[in-house]
Amino acid sequence: MGKRKAGHGFTEAPEDFLVVGPDFRLDRIDPASTPGFTGSKSDGEAILAQRDPHLADLQERLFAEGKGGGTRSLLLILQAMDTAGKGGMISHVVGAVDVQGVQLAAFRAPTDEEKEHDFLWRVERQLPGPGMLGCFDRSHYEDVLIHRVHNWADAAELERRYSAIQDFEAHLHASGTEIIKVMLHISREEQRRRLAARLDDPTKYWKYSPSDLTERKLWGSYMDAYQIAIERTSTPYAPWYVVPADNKWYARMVVQELLVAALERMDPQWPAPAFDIEEQKELLAQS
Amino acid sequence: MGKRKAGHGFTEAPEDFLVVGPDFRLDRIDPASTPGFTGSKSDGEAILAQRDPHLADLQERLFAEGKGGGTRSLLLILQAMDTAGKGGMISHVVGAVDVQGVQLAAFRAPTDEEKEHDFLWRVERQLPGPGMLGCFDRSHYEDVLIHRVHNWADAAELERRYSAIQDFEAHLHASGTEIIKVMLHISREEQRRRLAARLDDPTKYWKYSPSDLTERKLWGSYMDAYQIAIERTSTPYAPWYVVPADNKWYARMVVQELLVAALERMDPQWPAPAFDIEEQKELLAQS
Repeated sequence: MGKRKAGHGFTEAPEDFLVVGPDFRLDRIDPASTPGFTGSKSDGEAILAQRDPHLADLQERLFAEGKGGGTRSLLLILQAMDTAGKGGMISHVVGAVDVQGVQLAAFRAPTDEEKEHDFLWRVERQLPGPGMLGCFDRSHYEDVLIHRVHNWADAAELERRYSAIQDFEAHLHASGTEIIKVMLHISREEQRRRLAARLDDPTKYWKYSPSDLTERKLWGSYMDAYQIAIERTSTPYAPWYVVPADNKWYARMVVQELLVAALERMDPQWPAPAFDIEEQKELLAQS
Repeated sequence: MGKRKAGHGFTEAPEDFLVVGPDFRLDRIDPASTPGFTGSKSDGEAILAQRDPHLADLQERLFAEGKGGGTRSLLLILQAMDTAGKGGMISHVVGAVDVQGVQLAAFRAPTDEEKEHDFLWRVERQLPGPGMLGCFDRSHYEDVLIHRVHNWADAAELERRYSAIQDFEAHLHASGTEIIKVMLHISREEQRRRLAARLDDPTKYWKYSPSDLTERKLWGSYMDAYQIAIERTSTPYAPWYVVPADNKWYARMVVQELLVAALERMDPQWPAPAFDIEEQKELLAQS
């Protein structure tokens, strides 16, 4: 990384300045900031819309490459506190590409069957196929986040999991899956506003759960758990990006650009034909 | 049906005049026609775009209903000859709603594991969950279409399958899944043009396969197989619609409207809150 010029609309390429490095400190990142972007909300929304076709084109190439026998794929992992905007990210950024090339997986509380297996078992079953853009709405990181916060796993088990995640992601990357891990970072105050908005709108009640307040009380513990999980698992082959997300439009611009950057690096190619074109044209003309 | 006023932009509601009735004759439907619509291509495309938000709104309500404990779902089954536009239908019509509420399944040649089971086994595993818009790109109908054309199933087995499909779909409907079955109907000549276009464009080679010509030679047998399959399995609870598809924009308008009509009939509701709103507001304010 670091070789691409600034992303569309940004003063610098977001994959360079939002990537987690060795001195990462979550508490120094302002969720309300919009680093690398000097425009307004409407500027940002315009850029987001303008950039959709480029992302869609790159995604179609990856999809075609997969159909032509390629084995590469791209996986976006989204983690965040409630209301941080994972759903909107999926609808508006991931959802802007061809739905046929998208493989979504939402990881909620594990089922009884899932609990009988190691924590990576259910994740392995949802990995993107060849040519696919996979997107995880929550992920195996829950097993080192909520599990740490609630002490459902002890220190030794958490250590085992950080290592297992590193190994798992290294293997995945070596098998041809590019991995982008994103924490959408909102402030506690912004979460309050968003929860209040859900309680004020009958078309949004279904998005609210009283248990949201239980987790909200543990905000500090969650931030600690994110800090540790991110510093333990941000690697060159599976980097973490912490994206300020109090401004939804900014977070969406960034994630769109992270996907574009990853796909540009992958540079997927239209498959060469596995048949003789002129011969097929003749056969078609006769048919 | 038959009670809704004309669909948006149509002189009559497409679910009324395109539904397969007792006198169905596939060979009397002109694939180049645009029944019920008197506007131009650009009119049609404008209506399609204008109508997207309404479809997306209805779909979100269904999704919310599912999250709130509802068990209903909607299943769109697409069948067609190669190049008829299933993929574009999924990208442009189904893909216009929130990707989080869409469950796609593409049925290709069965795997060895799938072959060990009855033909409906793999289909049952891909049924839409509560609140979901399911979409089948090909389906269990392949087992009475290509299987009939190639004599992979004998007459008695085909009879068994028509009955099994009726039972299966009746059960599915009784369990809360609305079913819309669509045949995108193109002409043999239009298929030639579309295959030729794929052979003229390096970004489309991957969509072409020499085997497309093998099936193309069997056009007449396929039309016979569609005629029989459709007349044997069009029921009030799982109706077939044969949609003229030489004009992609027209076919998309129709399928969009069929989805809208189905969702309007279902009339999904925002879930009532399962908590005391004022109490939660107070708890949130204190948090």
